[in-house]
Amino acid sequence: MMKFGILGSGMVATSLGGKLIEKGHEVMLGTRSPDKLGDWVAQVGDKAQIGSFEAAARFGDWLINATSGAGTLAALELAGEENLIGKVLIDISNPLDFSKGMPPTLFVSNTDSLGEQIQRSYPQAKVIKTFNTLTAALMVDPQSLSEGDHTLFICGDDPKAKAQVIEFLSSELGWRDVIDLGDITSARATEMLLPLWIRLYMKFGTPRVQFKIVR
Amino acid sequence: MMKFGILGSGMVATSLGGKLIEKGHEVMLGTRSPDKLGDWVAQVGDKAQIGSFEAAARFGDWLINATSGAGTLAALELAGEENLIGKVLIDISNPLDFSKGMPPTLFVSNTDSLGEQIQRSYPQAKVIKTFNTLTAALMVDPQSLSEGDHTLFICGDDPKAKAQVIEFLSSELGWRDVIDLGDITSARATEMLLPLWIRLYMKFGTPRVQFKIVR
Repeated sequence: MMKFGILGSGMVATSLGGKLIEKGHEVMLGTRSPDKLGDWVAQVGDKAQIGSFEAAARFGDWLINATSGAGTLAALELAGEENLIGKVLIDISNPLDFSKGMPPTLFVSNTDSLGEQIQRSYPQAKVIKTFNTLTAALMVDPQSLSEGDHTLFICGDDPKAKAQVIEFLSSELGWRDVIDLGDITSARATEMLLPLWIRLYMKFGTPRVQFKIVR
Repeated sequence: MMKFGILGSGMVATSLGGKLIEKGHEVMLGTRSPDKLGDWVAQVGDKAQIGSFEAAARFGDWLINATSGAGTLAALELAGEENLIGKVLIDISNPLDFSKGMPPTLFVSNTDSLGEQIQRSYPQAKVIKTFNTLTAALMVDPQSLSEGDHTLFICGDDPKAKAQVIEFLSSELGWRDVIDLGDITSARATEMLLPLWIRLYMKFGTPRVQFKIVR
């Protein structure tokens, strides 16, 4: 059993939180809007807690950033640097900029990434970028699409932390094809998939579209 | 039988040129370095010709841009605007910038693309972006990897030209899963796949890695 602090209150946060509780873990969701999450707590049971970003970050052995890209650095600042030290921080955010209309562009890309910005801001956190290239329902149930025959990307600077996360994703969520792209600079490559992912979502009218790397 | 003018003298140009000749078409490769291509002509036979960018562009019913991204706009200028008017121009280039070391970054991305730059520069050409997300050997023989069970992206502003190209890729080269992403602004999304593709190439030690969109 592990304790997870999840920053965010959207579909990614609640889907992952619910699944982790179902798997026997304890979860605190950190949010600015705790009143939005009453139904979620009622639904998933007494292993679910709601708190501030700071409380959730203090609570978790592992942390998950499921805030919007635009709000990520502010949320982590509220979480508090001291609560991130030495911890795995799974970063699912994407630097989507909706200010120019649809489809969104990226507010950081090509020579930098949001994953790298987080790692630079919190050098003592173990930032692991993953899950940012697919929809929440598939993160927690990869088998529900094409019997799980598709790919998850992962990157991060700490090989041991990355290996632990890969093992967890495999054993707890059933991920079979997880490709380790290397250090956190690889986050650029996965965040830059979003423009394609969003166009595929718009084209097929469903977010249940996934990348598979055929090799 | 069609006449193809291919700009470029690298692997993409020679692989496609060879395959198109094998399929009974006539091909002129346009290059600044015709002496580099003597072996290729000897190998593929008398339907292969070599010329300048301008001669190749004049020759082709359909044109293929297989120059490097950095040299693309200059090559098209040499090809001559009058030789592009009304023609399908299949653009395979990627805006790779190797000046900062490996892996390369992109010299245009996110809010624009090389495909769009070409279309804006030559509004009377029918620019079709495709083939820029995979290695040359798979373009001409998709069946050789996973029995062809992987995806090709295509985009462009002219629906009729796009439909003709899709039909050609299917009937002549055996492409089964071609996803039409929409207008030429979608070129951004496919060019932005390159950072991931290059990291996968480096990781697996082979360019025979391909995207499949599972849905």
